[in-house]
Amino acid sequence: MSTHPLEKLLHPRSIAVVGASGSGGRGGGFIAPLQELGYRGKIYPVNPKYSEIMGMKAYPSVKDIPGPVDYVISSIPASQVLGMIEDCSQKGVKVIHLFTARFSETGRKEAAELEQEILRRIRKGGIRLIGPNCMGVYYPAEGISFGTGMSKESGPVGLISQSGMAVGQVVGLAAQRGIRFSKAISYGNALDFNECDYLEYFTQDPETKIILMYIEGVRDGRRFFNSLRKATSTKPVIIVKGGRGKSGTRATASHTASLAGSMGVFETLVSQTGAISARDLEELVDVACAFYYLPPIKGRRVGVAGGSGGSSVLAADQCEEAGLDVIPLPVEIREELKSKGNSIWDWIGNPADFSIAMDNFDMGGMVQMMATHPSFDLLILFMHGPWLRGRRRGRRISIDAHLKQYRLEEVSKEPLLVVLLEGGRGGDSDAATRKVMAEMRTKLIEANIPIYPNIGRAAGAASKVVDYYTRRK
Amino acid sequence: MSTHPLEKLLHPRSIAVVGASGSGGRGGGFIAPLQELGYRGKIYPVNPKYSEIMGMKAYPSVKDIPGPVDYVISSIPASQVLGMIEDCSQKGVKVIHLFTARFSETGRKEAAELEQEILRRIRKGGIRLIGPNCMGVYYPAEGISFGTGMSKESGPVGLISQSGMAVGQVVGLAAQRGIRFSKAISYGNALDFNECDYLEYFTQDPETKIILMYIEGVRDGRRFFNSLRKATSTKPVIIVKGGRGKSGTRATASHTASLAGSMGVFETLVSQTGAISARDLEELVDVACAFYYLPPIKGRRVGVAGGSGGSSVLAADQCEEAGLDVIPLPVEIREELKSKGNSIWDWIGNPADFSIAMDNFDMGGMVQMMATHPSFDLLILFMHGPWLRGRRRGRRISIDAHLKQYRLEEVSKEPLLVVLLEGGRGGDSDAATRKVMAEMRTKLIEANIPIYPNIGRAAGAASKVVDYYTRRK
Repeated sequence: MSTHPLEKLLHPRSIAVVGASGSGGRGGGFIAPLQELGYRGKIYPVNPKYSEIMGMKAYPSVKDIPGPVDYVISSIPASQVLGMIEDCSQKGVKVIHLFTARFSETGRKEAAELEQEILRRIRKGGIRLIGPNCMGVYYPAEGISFGTGMSKESGPVGLISQSGMAVGQVVGLAAQRGIRFSKAISYGNALDFNECDYLEYFTQDPETKIILMYIEGVRDGRRFFNSLRKATSTKPVIIVKGGRGKSGTRATASHTASLAGSMGVFETLVSQTGAISARDLEELVDVACAFYYLPPIKGRRVGVAGGSGGSSVLAADQCEEAGLDVIPLPVEIREELKSKGNSIWDWIGNPADFSIAMDNFDMGGMVQMMATHPSFDLLILFMHGPWLRGRRRGRRISIDAHLKQYRLEEVSKEPLLVVLLEGGRGGDSDAATRKVMAEMRTKLIEANIPIYPNIGRAAGAASKVVDYYTRRK
Repeated sequence: MSTHPLEKLLHPRSIAVVGASGSGGRGGGFIAPLQELGYRGKIYPVNPKYSEIMGMKAYPSVKDIPGPVDYVISSIPASQVLGMIEDCSQKGVKVIHLFTARFSETGRKEAAELEQEILRRIRKGGIRLIGPNCMGVYYPAEGISFGTGMSKESGPVGLISQSGMAVGQVVGLAAQRGIRFSKAISYGNALDFNECDYLEYFTQDPETKIILMYIEGVRDGRRFFNSLRKATSTKPVIIVKGGRGKSGTRATASHTASLAGSMGVFETLVSQTGAISARDLEELVDVACAFYYLPPIKGRRVGVAGGSGGSSVLAADQCEEAGLDVIPLPVEIREELKSKGNSIWDWIGNPADFSIAMDNFDMGGMVQMMATHPSFDLLILFMHGPWLRGRRRGRRISIDAHLKQYRLEEVSKEPLLVVLLEGGRGGDSDAATRKVMAEMRTKLIEANIPIYPNIGRAAGAASKVVDYYTRRK
């Protein structure tokens, strides 16, 4: 178990939701997720206006709760927070998650002063603080969540995000690729615990193997550099920096009161520590997906298979532009094809265009040869949605038959990325295509194969994974 | 009407499909689309092995067809093509679409020689040729198509593609955004008609207002430069070049026997003519979508609205990185908000973060002010899938109510792009979110508003549209 101060705080015996309401309101919104995820501790709704909330007795204040209270979620207005902290101090509360916002991020002097007063009071009361102005914690193994509909399953990815919306979005995008989280924490204005604290916590957290960050500002550059270097020496860390330009920097101030700082300095810092930069939340999830499913990729020599002519040409271009090396098809594979009597042995290349080779061509054999040949460090395989609706002797080819045809089970331990191309016609048949694509997606996830919507994103993610292993050497 | 030689060839009185078969085979595949799109001329299946194909009388050869034959689609093997051309010459056929492949693209001497012999024979017979090694023509107004499931509706976009798969993919991706085509032509090895012929045809075609190209090689650089310059002086031309790097160039040779040429030279040529380059087929459709729906965008000053805190910050960064100018919120809008008693008038900015302003905030008013204010040249509006499932007083807010809330009808004539963010949680609720998103997508298309899946793609497309208008000045 981690010895980090957060560790204990994230295993509370009880959670009080201050500002809870019967329905609709945000406070009620914090109780339902705890119930849904099966939080095993006590849940206490706090609101002087109600005697009962969501089937539970409601208390007028934290002080009125009979048992011990370890963790408080606050959604009351900013003006009431000091009073609540007083109650929490008396009650022996250990940590407060301030969903409550409208502090320094408003740019108003009195709001910033109130924020500083809050800091003084929690220090005095021996309380730690997550936030303010944030969604707080999603920790599936502990049954803690800030939103409904989030997975109960845990996984090896830890997410630290200054933005609350970004947490939901990243967890959602990742879920669609089968990725599960150890915990995800949104921390907003970082008044007490800041980006370094969370990063250090995830670094020593045995439940976390891959760290994702969305960050707007860094308070202490030197400490962040050291924390990040330590983190990347044991786990991949992938970072999206918000506030890279002039207008984005302006936006971070009114979002989380962050000073975004110079992007050039930040980029240097990231690459010197061996961390990985991502441009946006989609790329963050793309790179996470490659780390999540793939064994270490040892080099940049990529094989591409399964596309048509045009998509093979563009695939070659985009792999190269992403920094991968699209080597010619190894002569041994060519010889093997020739010895098997393949009529296009001298024509097929890398990328291997499967549309010229559809009839009687052993696609699975080709995929297997390319995936396992020592000249290739990784393989990207195309699947076209409409092809998945193919028929053989009048009967639909099942998804299992497709997987078998590509011999995916046999190569799923190799560094293999699948590009699942939609490519419908926009008509009624698209619904049917999407259905088989969803089936295929489920099967690929079950087979631990990462899925990408296009070649550019697959190649970009793979290249960044190679960057990480190269820098670590 | 256009005086280009292609014009007449694309209005054939009859089409013979040589190599047609009863079912499953590619030849049958060319008859079904003609029937589905309601081609009004005569369709003649040709195959000596059958007496009837798909309910129509089949003929042993083109010569045996009783009436005149203007247009022939060939899916017979390469070895039989010369004989068929002989028949076509005798019959007075005007144009042959050679779906038939395995010519120079195989890299084999005898196949390349056969291709040259075909060229000599069609010249001698007074026949023109589309292809070989291509999907041919999709021309909805004429009822011509190479695939089923394609729209019967026409629109102002013309597509020229060296790759057959790319045509289907672009038409499909575009259809999902409500874009319709005048015609789309896949031309493969460009043995007779080449990229310049098609470009010149589309330039004078009154049915085409926007030209899209996927191109692997240019035979005559000077002619292409002149054709492209002429085209862009009247219509936007957006080009994806396949074969940009070393391996992509290798792939173009085996795909369409193209010499990809130097990418540096090509890029210079494109920008000098005022055409627009796109990286891949998705970007091609993104840019087409902006030209299709928007009035001319006069400058780079962008307003962004409707995001949350984190997405607003990243939106600002990505707009700037795409070359747009995220100006501060104009003081007049701020004053207007203040005069209306808006409590966050001094805090809200550009991007306008709507998550801080959810309660009692007049989103539609803000959207309208930003869309119509003279300081903004364009507006990008975020919509979050999960928000579209919102409830008011326990009842689901209808899609129409959402549109009204944003006052989209009133601003749909301004340069407005909508980013429709998926952002589900990966669970069961995603299906419901996707359903309301599909509803919203339909409504937005009906309102002539272009839709993008993320801010990067919206900003990138808008910026390229501005490039076009700037270069034209």
